[in-house]
Amino acid sequence: MSQTALELTTALNTDCGEGFGNWHVDDAEILSVVSDANIACGFHAGDPDTLARTCALAAEFGVGIGAHVGFHDLRGFGRRYIAVPRDTLTHDVIYQIGALDAFASAAGAVVSYVKPHGALYHSAARNEHHARAIVDAITSLNRPLSLLCQTDSLLAEYARESGIPVTAEGFMDRSYAADGTLVPRSQPGAVIDDPSAAAEQAVQMITTQTVTAADGSSIPMNVQSLCIHSDSPGAVNLARTVRSALEDAGVKIQSAIDHL
Amino acid sequence: MSQTALELTTALNTDCGEGFGNWHVDDAEILSVVSDANIACGFHAGDPDTLARTCALAAEFGVGIGAHVGFHDLRGFGRRYIAVPRDTLTHDVIYQIGALDAFASAAGAVVSYVKPHGALYHSAARNEHHARAIVDAITSLNRPLSLLCQTDSLLAEYARESGIPVTAEGFMDRSYAADGTLVPRSQPGAVIDDPSAAAEQAVQMITTQTVTAADGSSIPMNVQSLCIHSDSPGAVNLARTVRSALEDAGVKIQSAIDHL
Amino acid sequence: MSQTALELTTALNTDCGEGFGNWHVDDAEILSVVSDANIACGFHAGDPDTLARTCALAAEFGVGIGAHVGFHDLRGFGRRYIAVPRDTLTHDVIYQIGALDAFASAAGAVVSYVKPHGALYHSAARNEHHARAIVDAITSLNRPLSLLCQTDSLLAEYARESGIPVTAEGFMDRSYAADGTLVPRSQPGAVIDDPSAAAEQAVQMITTQTVTAADGSSIPMNVQSLCIHSDSPGAVNLARTVRSALEDAGVKIQSAIDHL
Amino acid sequence: MSQTALELTTALNTDCGEGFGNWHVDDAEILSVVSDANIACGFHAGDPDTLARTCALAAEFGVGIGAHVGFHDLRGFGRRYIAVPRDTLTHDVIYQIGALDAFASAAGAVVSYVKPHGALYHSAARNEHHARAIVDAITSLNRPLSLLCQTDSLLAEYARESGIPVTAEGFMDRSYAADGTLVPRSQPGAVIDDPSAAAEQAVQMITTQTVTAADGSSIPMNVQSLCIHSDSPGAVNLARTVRSALEDAGVKIQSAIDHL
Repeated sequence: MSQTALELTTALNTDCGEGFGNWHVDDAEILSVVSDANIACGFHAGDPDTLARTCALAAEFGVGIGAHVGFHDLRGFGRRYIAVPRDTLTHDVIYQIGALDAFASAAGAVVSYVKPHGALYHSAARNEHHARAIVDAITSLNRPLSLLCQTDSLLAEYARESGIPVTAEGFMDRSYAADGTLVPRSQPGAVIDDPSAAAEQAVQMITTQTVTAADGSSIPMNVQSLCIHSDSPGAVNLARTVRSALEDAGVKIQSAIDHL
Repeated sequence: MSQTALELTTALNTDCGEGFGNWHVDDAEILSVVSDANIACGFHAGDPDTLARTCALAAEFGVGIGAHVGFHDLRGFGRRYIAVPRDTLTHDVIYQIGALDAFASAAGAVVSYVKPHGALYHSAARNEHHARAIVDAITSLNRPLSLLCQTDSLLAEYARESGIPVTAEGFMDRSYAADGTLVPRSQPGAVIDDPSAAAEQAVQMITTQTVTAADGSSIPMNVQSLCIHSDSPGAVNLARTVRSALEDAGVKIQSAIDHL
Repeated sequence: MSQTALELTTALNTDCGEGFGNWHVDDAEILSVVSDANIACGFHAGDPDTLARTCALAAEFGVGIGAHVGFHDLRGFGRRYIAVPRDTLTHDVIYQIGALDAFASAAGAVVSYVKPHGALYHSAARNEHHARAIVDAITSLNRPLSLLCQTDSLLAEYARESGIPVTAEGFMDRSYAADGTLVPRSQPGAVIDDPSAAAEQAVQMITTQTVTAADGSSIPMNVQSLCIHSDSPGAVNLARTVRSALEDAGVKIQSAIDHL
Repeated sequence: MSQTALELTTALNTDCGEGFGNWHVDDAEILSVVSDANIACGFHAGDPDTLARTCALAAEFGVGIGAHVGFHDLRGFGRRYIAVPRDTLTHDVIYQIGALDAFASAAGAVVSYVKPHGALYHSAARNEHHARAIVDAITSLNRPLSLLCQTDSLLAEYARESGIPVTAEGFMDRSYAADGTLVPRSQPGAVIDDPSAAAEQAVQMITTQTVTAADGSSIPMNVQSLCIHSDSPGAVNLARTVRSALEDAGVKIQSAIDHL
C-alpha cells in the first residue's frame, strides 16, 4: 500500500453507464472528477452501446474500470433481492466481467476490479452463498482483479481468504453508527446532504482513518476509496467539493488499482 | 493450411448451448462427435449457466469454441432480421464474444472463432453494414479470432480484406444451385434428409472440393468445415454417419483452428 | 358449492403454456384430461404466441382458464423469490391477467381464476405484502375472478376477507405433515411417484375431505381442485390414472368455476 | 363525424408512458394539454408500474387512452424494424392491448384506440403482413377500438375494409411533399422547430383540411388528430402554443373517440 505519512491518497469511485437503450445517462462530467468508474454490465443497467461509450470515456479520462455486477433484473435496476442459487450467481458475475472486459480491451484498457451493485452489494455482505459466488467468479477467471466493497462484510472476508485484494470502501455522505455500520436510510440524518459536511467527513476518513459516529464517538475506519453516488441531482457538484477539500488537505486522488 | 494430398482434413461444427433458463438442451452427445462448438452467447439463446456448462463440455471433449453471435432477440431465437445500426451491432458482437470468452477461460480454453447465427448469418452475407459490423468487432478485440461462414458472402470478403482468417463452411444436408448458392428451403429437395446421401455429399465436398448441384453439374466449392444442424431430431445419428463416412474416406476430423 | 352427498366433484388443474419463443411445450394431451388450465402469462414463461395457442386449446377442450401469474423472471422460470414491492407486484399481476384475458376473449372464453406460480405461490402464502398485492390486483379489476391456492395461506385469508372466492387446492402427489403442511421436497417420501398411490390419495381427499399424513394420522382437508404437475415425464399418464380412479369412485371432474 | 361548419374540432395526441423501471418519464404536464394519450404497453417502453401510473393520469385528466403498440424491443425502443411473422405480430398486439386495458379498467377508463409506434408505424403503412396483423388483432378482440394513423397507409386501408374506424393523423411539426407524404427527416426543413410555424400549420390543417407542401402548393389533407411529439425538449411549450392557436381559431380540442 502506497499510503504513507508523506503521501495520503484515496480513490473516488462512482457508478456509471447506468442507461439502457433509449434511456441515456451522460457520465462525462462525473468521470472527469473521480478516479474509478464502476460500470454497469447489462444486467441491472447498461447495454452494449452504453458499455462501449462508458469504457471509451473511462479510458479517455484515465480512470480505473470496475465491473459493477448486479442481479439480472433491468426492470428493478438490481435493487431487488433475488434468491439466485450460488452457482448461477457465479456464472452471472463471470458473464458480466467478461462482457465488460471486451469493451475495456477495445478501449485499450482493462477491468481492474469488481464491485457488486445495489441489492447484490447488500446480499454479498451477509449472505454466505452470494459472497462465495462472487469470490468463486473472480477466482475462476484467473486474472488480476480486486474487489471494492465495505470491509465489514462476508464478501471482504472470503475475498481476503482467497487472496483477492480488497479495496476498503467508505461513504462520506452517509452517517455511521458507533458499531461502524451505516445508519439506515429510514432514520433521520442517515444521509448527509450538505456537500461541505460530506467533504469534511471525507477528509477525516482519509487523513485520520476514523469517522465520527452518529453518537459523537470517533471510530476507526479503514477507507481506501470513497463512493460518489452519481444518480443524485447534485452529484457532480458534490464530487467536485469533496475532491477539492481532499486535495486542499494534501490528499492525492488516484485509482484504487494504484494501491494494489 | 494443413490440407494436402497426403492428409485430407475437415472440421465438423455444430450449434450448441441453445437452451435458456428452465428450457434445457443437452449437448453432450453431439459434442462427442464434432470438432467445433458454435456456442450461443445469451442474445438469441443461452444464459450464464448454459454458457458455463457448454464451455466446460467443449473443453472436456477438446473441441474448438466459437462465439455463435446473434441478434439480441431471445423471443425470436435470432431468426428474425432486425434493422440494427452498424455501431450497435459491432457492440453486440463484442459483448457476446467477451461474455463467452470469460467462460472459455474459466474452463481452461479460449474462443477461437466467431460464427453469426440465424438471421444475422444471412444478413451478414448481403448487408454491408452488418458484415462490416462483425468485422469491426473482431478487429477491435485484437485477439486471434477467425470467422466461420460461407465464403460467398460480404462477410467473408470484408474479413479477408481485414486480415481475419475465414474458415469456409459447407452444408452437406442442403442442395446447392449451379451458381453455388443454397436451394431455398421452400423448394422441393432443398434439404437432404437421408443420412447416407448427406454423408456422400460430405465426402465429395471434402475429398474433391466440389459439390453436385441440383441440375447435376459439378461445381467447385471450397469447404473446410461442415455444419451439423443440432436441432433436428436425428442430428446425432446424422453426425455419426457423416463422421464415419469421412473417416472411411481417409478424412481426418479436426478443429478448424488447426487449419489456421 | 355444488358438492353434495349425491354428487361428488373435483377440479383437476394443471400448469400449461410454459414454453417461450423457440422452446415449445405441447399441452394438447394434458389439456384433454384436466378441467382447468393455469396458463403462464409471459412473466415466468409464455409469450404472445404461446398464450394464443394455449387459450385456443383450452377453449377447444372446454377447460377453465386461469391466469398463472408469476414473478417477472423468465430466466429463473419464476422459481426464485424476488423482493418486489407490494404496489409493483399488484401491477405485475394486473398486467398478466389483462394480457391473458385478451387471448381468452379472442378464443371466445374468459379468464375465470388466478393462481400464483412457483416462488410467488410460496411467497403469497406467508408474505403479507405479496398476499395483499395479489388480492389488490384482483379487486381493482372488478371482474368475477376467483383464486386457486392452498387454503392454509395468507393469500386465501385475505382473499376471503375481500370477498374473492377461493378454490381449495390439494396435492395428491405430495405427502402432508400432521399439521396439514406439505412435507418439504428435501425429505424422503415427500413426493408420491407411484401413480396408483397418488390416485388413492386423490380419491381419499375428494371423497372424505381428509388426507393421511406422513405419521399415519388422518387429518381433515378441504380440497376442491387437485393439481397435476405437467412438467414431470409421466404427467399425462398420472393425470389419466388419477382421473379414472376418481371417476370410478363416482367423482365428477369439472372446472372449479362450476363450484362458484 | 361531429365536425361541422359550426363547430371545428380536433384531437391532440401524444406518446406517453415511455419510461422503464428506474428510467422515469413524467407525463403529467403534457397530459394536461392534449386530448388523447398513446400509452406504451411494455414492448418498446413501459412496465406495469408505468402503465398503472399513466392510465391513472389519463383518467384524472379525462383524456382518451390509446394502446401505443410496438415491436417487442425495449433495447431499441421499438425504432428498429423487426421481421416479425404476421401471426406473431397479431399476438403481440393483442397482448399489449389486453395488458393496457386492464390498467385502464382499474382506473375507471377504457382503451379506445390503437396506434402503432415507431418502426411498426412505418412498417404497417407499407408492409402488407404487418398491416393485416394489426387489423386482425383489433378484429379478434371484438371491442369498440379505432385506429389512429396516417390515412395514406395500408393499415388505414385494411382497417376501413374491416369496419374499424380510422382517425386521420396529421403532423404539424413536419413538412409534407406535394404528394402528401412526409419530407424525410434527412432533408433540410423536414422538421418545423418554430412553435408558431407549427401552430400555423396546425390551424391550417384543421380549419381548411389542407396543408401547404414544401413546394408551396396547397394539398388537401384529412386530419382529425394532431400528433405532439413528447420526447423533444420543448414538447410541452409546443403543445400549449398549438392548443392556444387552435382555440383562438375557434377549434375545439376533444378526444378522437368523440368523433366516432
